[in-house]
Amino acid sequence: MNQQKRILSGMRPTGRLHLGNLHGALENWISLQSQYDCFFFVADWHAFTSDYAAPGDIRRNSWEMVLDWLAAGLDPKQSTLFVQSELKQHAELYLLLGMITPLAWLERNPTYKEQQLQLQAKDLSTYGFLGYPVLQAADIIIYRANGVPVGKDQLPHIELTREIARRFNHLYECEVFPVPDALLTEVPVLPGTDGRKMSKSYGNCIFITEPEEDIRRKVLQMMTDPARKRRTDPGDPEVCPVFAYHKLYSSQEEVAEAAHGCRTAGIGCVDCKGILIRNLLKRLGPIRERRLQLERNVEEVRAGLKDGIERARKESSATMERVLEAVGLSGSFV
Amino acid sequence: MNQQKRILSGMRPTGRLHLGNLHGALENWISLQSQYDCFFFVADWHAFTSDYAAPGDIRRNSWEMVLDWLAAGLDPKQSTLFVQSELKQHAELYLLLGMITPLAWLERNPTYKEQQLQLQAKDLSTYGFLGYPVLQAADIIIYRANGVPVGKDQLPHIELTREIARRFNHLYECEVFPVPDALLTEVPVLPGTDGRKMSKSYGNCIFITEPEEDIRRKVLQMMTDPARKRRTDPGDPEVCPVFAYHKLYSSQEEVAEAAHGCRTAGIGCVDCKGILIRNLLKRLGPIRERRLQLERNVEEVRAGLKDGIERARKESSATMERVLEAVGLSGSFV
Repeated sequence: MNQQKRILSGMRPTGRLHLGNLHGALENWISLQSQYDCFFFVADWHAFTSDYAAPGDIRRNSWEMVLDWLAAGLDPKQSTLFVQSELKQHAELYLLLGMITPLAWLERNPTYKEQQLQLQAKDLSTYGFLGYPVLQAADIIIYRANGVPVGKDQLPHIELTREIARRFNHLYECEVFPVPDALLTEVPVLPGTDGRKMSKSYGNCIFITEPEEDIRRKVLQMMTDPARKRRTDPGDPEVCPVFAYHKLYSSQEEVAEAAHGCRTAGIGCVDCKGILIRNLLKRLGPIRERRLQLERNVEEVRAGLKDGIERARKESSATMERVLEAVGLSGSFV
Repeated sequence: MNQQKRILSGMRPTGRLHLGNLHGALENWISLQSQYDCFFFVADWHAFTSDYAAPGDIRRNSWEMVLDWLAAGLDPKQSTLFVQSELKQHAELYLLLGMITPLAWLERNPTYKEQQLQLQAKDLSTYGFLGYPVLQAADIIIYRANGVPVGKDQLPHIELTREIARRFNHLYECEVFPVPDALLTEVPVLPGTDGRKMSKSYGNCIFITEPEEDIRRKVLQMMTDPARKRRTDPGDPEVCPVFAYHKLYSSQEEVAEAAHGCRTAGIGCVDCKGILIRNLLKRLGPIRERRLQLERNVEEVRAGLKDGIERARKESSATMERVLEAVGLSGSFV
C-alpha cells in the first residue's frame, strides 16, 4: 500500500447522493481505490464557505453521504475515509499556509469571481470564502498526496495548491510537501429530470438509493425533446435527457435502437423510458440493497470511519510535526 | 476566582523585554492580575502575520519573554500563562470565525492599511495578515474574556472582535460569546536611548534584565536636549529623553530638581544621568535578581507554564464544545 501513489479527494456533505454525484465523482473514486492509496473525506468545514448562515444539519447530511459512499462501493478497508472537522490539524495548517499565501493569488482565482456572480443569492464576500482554496490546499498537502482527481473547472485550484506547496518548501528550505498533480477526469454530464444540471436546489434529482416506484415515476415525468409533441413526430435524441441516461445505463444495441426509434418516430417516449427504467433499476438495485444492509449494520460503518479517522490522524499529525519543525514551532513548549 | 471578570492579553514573542515593553504592557498586566482572572499568552502564531519569511527563533524568543514576564512579577499561580500555538483550538475557531467575517470589515480596519504603509520593507499582502484581527478575535473570545487591556491605537481591533462575537451569537442564535470590553490603558511613552520610539530594530533599547554596567553605559550615551551643547547652556527637559525616564524612575523631588537644574543650567547632563542611573538600577535590580533565580529553577517555570496551558486547554475546549454545538458540528462523528 505504501508503495502506491496517494490520492486525496473530498465532497461537501450534501446528504443523500444523486446520479450526478455518482457519475461526477463517486464512480471515479471507486475505480481509483484499487489502484491507489486513497484518502476520501467529508468536507464539512467547506460547507461553511458558501453556507455559513444556514449550514443545515451537517452531521446528518455527512452521515447520509457516507452511507451512500459505502452503498455504491467505497470500501473503508481499501480507502481511508474520514471527516474533515474531526482532524483539527487541517485548521492549524490552514492558519499557517494562510500566512504565506499572497492575497493576489486568491483574488485572481477564476472560480472566486465566477461563483460570486453565479451564487448572487448567497453572501460570498467573507474572509472564509476568499480563503477556501487555502483550506483546500491544507486538506490535500497535509496527507502529502501525490494526486487529486479533478474536473477541468477545478484545475486553477490545484494550481494554487501546487504553488502554495512549492512556496512553503522554498520559504522554509524543506521538502515537507510533495507537489500534487491533478488527475484530470472526464466526467459524463448527466442532466436532471428537467434537462438542467442535476442539482438539489432545482428539485430535479434522481437519488442513487431512491425507492423503485419513485425512480419509475421520475423517469416517466422526465422531460424529453420538446419538439416531439405527438407520438408520430420524429425527435432528436441529442437534446433528450432520457437519451443521455440511455448512454450511461443501456446496452450499445439499446442505445442505437433508442436513437433510431426516436429519429424515425418508431418508438414512443413512454416505451423508450420503459427500457431506461428497467436498466436503471438493474444498476441501482444492488446499491439500494447494500444501503439497507448498511443501515442495519451501523456499527460496522462506524468502525470503518473510526479506523479511517485514526489513519488520517496519524498521517496528518506526522506531517504537522514536520511542518512545525520547518517553521520553528516544533516540540512541546514546556 | 470565577466570580472575577476575565481579562485576556497577549504579546508577540520578541525575546528579552525592554523598558518600553515593561511600561507599555507588562506593568499593567502585573497590576491587573490581582484584580481579575487573567489569561496572558505568547502570541507566537501572530509572529507569522508580519514575519512569515523570517520568523526567527520563535521558541527561544518565547522562552526569554516568559522568563522576563515572571522576573517582572507575573505569577503563574495568580494568572493563566500560556503559549498560543499549544492550543490548536484557536486555529479551529479562527477557521470558523473567518467563515462569518465579511471581507469589508477587514479591509476597512485602519491598522491594516497603516501598517502596510509603515512596514513597506515587509510583505504584508498575505491572506494571514489581512485576517490577523480574526485570529485575535478567536484568541480573545475562545476564553470568553470580558475585557482586553489595550492602547488607543488598538481600539479598532477590539471593535472588530466585538462585532465578530455579536455576529456569531446572532447567526447561530446563541449566547456563546460575551462581547468583550476594551480596558483603555494610558501608557507612558518611553523613548529609546536615541529619542525615537524604543524598538529592537532601532537598536535603542534598554532591557529590563540588562547587566548594571550596560545600563550605566547606555544611559551615559543617551541623547539629551540637542540644543544644550555646553554645560553652561540651559536646556529644555521636555525634549530630553533622560527627563522622560526621570518621570518614571525618580522621586517627585528629584524630577523637580532635574527640571529646574536643566532649565537653569544648574545641573550638568552627566550628573542628571547619574541620578537616573541610581534610580534605574534600584528599580531593575530586583527584576534582574529574580530572572537569575528563575534561570536556576527552569523546572519551576516549566511547571507554571504547563499548568497555565492545561487551564487554557480546559477553558478553550469547553468554549469550542459550545461553538461546535451552535454550528452543528458537536460531538464526535463516529
